[in-house]
Amino acid sequence: MHRADPTSTDVLYRSVLQDLYWSIPPTVAMEGFLYESLATELGQAIDRGSLRAGDRLPSVRRLAEERSCSVSTVLEAYLRLENAGMIEVRPKSGHFVRRRALDSVVEPRAARACSRPSKVTVNDAYTEILAAMRDPELVPFGCATVDPSYLPIQQLNRIVTQVTREMTTVGARYEAAPGLLTLRRQIARRLVETGIALAEDELCTTIGATEALSLSFRAITRPGDVVAVESPSYFGILQNIQSLGLRALEIPAHPRHGFDVDAFEEALRGQPVRAVALAPTISNPLGSVMPDDQRERLVKLCKRADIAIIEDDVYGELMFDGSRPRPLRAFAPDDSHVIHVGSVSKTLAPGYRVGWVAGGRWHDQIVRMKYGQSLACPALLGMAVAEFLASGGYDRHLRRLRAALETNVERYREAIMAEFPEGTRVSAPRGGFVLWVELPAHVDALALHQQTLRRGIVIAPGPLFSARPRFHNFVRISAGTPWSERIETGLRTVAKLVR
Amino acid sequence: MHRADPTSTDVLYRSVLQDLYWSIPPTVAMEGFLYESLATELGQAIDRGSLRAGDRLPSVRRLAEERSCSVSTVLEAYLRLENAGMIEVRPKSGHFVRRRALDSVVEPRAARACSRPSKVTVNDAYTEILAAMRDPELVPFGCATVDPSYLPIQQLNRIVTQVTREMTTVGARYEAAPGLLTLRRQIARRLVETGIALAEDELCTTIGATEALSLSFRAITRPGDVVAVESPSYFGILQNIQSLGLRALEIPAHPRHGFDVDAFEEALRGQPVRAVALAPTISNPLGSVMPDDQRERLVKLCKRADIAIIEDDVYGELMFDGSRPRPLRAFAPDDSHVIHVGSVSKTLAPGYRVGWVAGGRWHDQIVRMKYGQSLACPALLGMAVAEFLASGGYDRHLRRLRAALETNVERYREAIMAEFPEGTRVSAPRGGFVLWVELPAHVDALALHQQTLRRGIVIAPGPLFSARPRFHNFVRISAGTPWSERIETGLRTVAKLVR
Repeated sequence: MHRADPTSTDVLYRSVLQDLYWSIPPTVAMEGFLYESLATELGQAIDRGSLRAGDRLPSVRRLAEERSCSVSTVLEAYLRLENAGMIEVRPKSGHFVRRRALDSVVEPRAARACSRPSKVTVNDAYTEILAAMRDPELVPFGCATVDPSYLPIQQLNRIVTQVTREMTTVGARYEAAPGLLTLRRQIARRLVETGIALAEDELCTTIGATEALSLSFRAITRPGDVVAVESPSYFGILQNIQSLGLRALEIPAHPRHGFDVDAFEEALRGQPVRAVALAPTISNPLGSVMPDDQRERLVKLCKRADIAIIEDDVYGELMFDGSRPRPLRAFAPDDSHVIHVGSVSKTLAPGYRVGWVAGGRWHDQIVRMKYGQSLACPALLGMAVAEFLASGGYDRHLRRLRAALETNVERYREAIMAEFPEGTRVSAPRGGFVLWVELPAHVDALALHQQTLRRGIVIAPGPLFSARPRFHNFVRISAGTPWSERIETGLRTVAKLVR
Repeated sequence: MHRADPTSTDVLYRSVLQDLYWSIPPTVAMEGFLYESLATELGQAIDRGSLRAGDRLPSVRRLAEERSCSVSTVLEAYLRLENAGMIEVRPKSGHFVRRRALDSVVEPRAARACSRPSKVTVNDAYTEILAAMRDPELVPFGCATVDPSYLPIQQLNRIVTQVTREMTTVGARYEAAPGLLTLRRQIARRLVETGIALAEDELCTTIGATEALSLSFRAITRPGDVVAVESPSYFGILQNIQSLGLRALEIPAHPRHGFDVDAFEEALRGQPVRAVALAPTISNPLGSVMPDDQRERLVKLCKRADIAIIEDDVYGELMFDGSRPRPLRAFAPDDSHVIHVGSVSKTLAPGYRVGWVAGGRWHDQIVRMKYGQSLACPALLGMAVAEFLASGGYDRHLRRLRAALETNVERYREAIMAEFPEGTRVSAPRGGFVLWVELPAHVDALALHQQTLRRGIVIAPGPLFSARPRFHNFVRISAGTPWSERIETGLRTVAKLVR
């Protein structure tokens, strides 16, 4: 499956499209045949890999012009491919090549259920991964951020300059919790679109989602409390559980459907659980998405059992198909035992540290906690983000970002399947940009991490994602950086070390 | 003591100096008499209040030119006034009118010792004061920030613009704990000047000193631990003690000399104490400064008893006389049980949220805590502050700021003594900008706070500064805003309500 020497996604993409335009002979006279011929041609391009999953097809109008045929002919051809499951329409974005149906064999296996909660000790690999983030020389498979080239950071920085010009003393005052009103207004507006009916005064801005999670845990729990988490789970959540003296109850998560509500219900019989912390939409590291019926079940179950839900929604805007699954909070409109956490760190500017929390019934407590934890967020950066969100450019940016990340994810997956030894399994995330890779059983991911680090490559070893001695042969690979020779060589080096 | 209608400090200052230049007749021929005449004239200006405590006298060279006399004549005159205790020399700043010796009767009384630790419940007035900070319509006697006009915020904002131009993708990456190297380097450089020998890798940048305190408490303590604090104490410290389930042991603090080490030693006999959290240089609200011998004693005592010290040094740069008392950490060079906390929130830009912590032996733990609490600080703002500190403009700015704050403090004190009813006592802080005011015993400061708030004035009621039912008749008044009719009317309104 490995392809020789693609230089950069963009260049490749353009050259494939050019090939495509000219490979279909415009001499086919009869429109009736033309659409079939067009469909066949496109289908072959997809089959042989000239067009890859996530690539956008030319717009209907443009292709019609190029091929001197009618718009309806192109539409007909696209419809045929759509019906064949080869391409898909995305609202406001166009036609895209669909991911090929994946054999479930290549997916990593889910964790087994375990009903005993356990203390957490986050591995030191965490520190090394964070340190590596500061070193641009290292190949960044380890950290879950996207490459700066994907972010509208210069646009944001220009807004910062504007704000300082218009509000000359911005930065001279504390913008104490719950934080900047204009920002909260924009966040509330976007949340309403996801199905969460929320007013700005139910939100508190935070230093990224990290602080939002920290404040939520501190507001809800006391030392010794049991918190249910996905297995595997984002290590930021495990780290909070550790530092607050809580215990983690790990609930298996399915590579595609995420948090296993059945297993959770089963586990509840054994012990009191104070809270459950999870990412229903594109979990980290799995990239799984909980189906709506399971979301509804979980919210009802937790309400009945008086269990708080902390919903980490930082990847919520990054579904490849442009859909926006309803957050758990949207399933609990009249109640407020669901805390909703978000940020712009995965989509706009990690370094701006702009996050938020809708604390539900714990809102006041969270605001008070925030006084003592960091008092206020930097107003200047919050204003820039608010301005960007208000401008309408965010959705345009998200469409581009999703397409780029889908291409990346697909490219990385293929390379891994081609290069890594037999027995390797890779997740098929429906959004985001991290891959969960199960390596052959004999591989020790922590040792592998040390070896790759010596070669200038950072990966996130599996044991980071559990409080138990689990996932010793798993790694998380971030596909947030555009495909390049450096990335290709990096993945090959990891593959060699695995062997 | 109240003076009619001074419009602004600056205008007043200039007009007084002008008067001064021309009131001394240049016809005095003999230099031998001239210095006496000059000294007398200046002394009278001080006596009648044309020159106030904290005002700077004209430079020696300038006055010599103005008066057509020799530099040595002016020096002689200044020396005479200095010997008379009326003026003082400040290194690199010039000659200043000294604060008149204060009758100790007007100082607020110190708290009594109490050996029992207690749980903390921070009053809701805290929330109201923080909310009030967001409302520029309110008269800001309540919050401990200085007026934007005193801060080089436009200069900082310009640096932000520059940084975004030069480093176009700044903000696109996490600058994970321990944070931006250039900033840590500048902080370390300044700390070395205060006597703290410290390398940049012993520092962690934080979201203001607030996060630094929060991380320190979380690294050191466990729920139930006893933490000794000054009484009265900064409510941010009490708030942390509350939210972490600790107990506060309140040690009396003297209005001028601060934390009472004798009382502390006494209290230690009764119970194990995990940590002591205090501001040895310009405590908040007292404005007290611990003498060096007491600092040394405290550090030794804590080392012997294995008690951690959390030193809050946010006001350390704001001594009116330009001195820089050695921080506690400087008294523990070979040991590291002293955690040193600082920020630029009182001196440069509260809204930038730039603080730091030198965690001593808890450094690694603090960095790990920071991962889970907020992960990273905004790099852009950190870079701007680092740049400003590196430019050398900081010391110049501090000299101006200290002079302005001293003038404010003096003006506010005078107004309070003139307007407030008999029995009122006011602190005489040696730096910073808050006044600790003891009102007649029958006054209920919490009720007073509600009444002033209805009239658009925010004050900080005394009970905020203790975990015990103390200071019911105290208020903290911030003098961070330049004197104006609005301020004057505000203080008069408070005075009326007190009566």
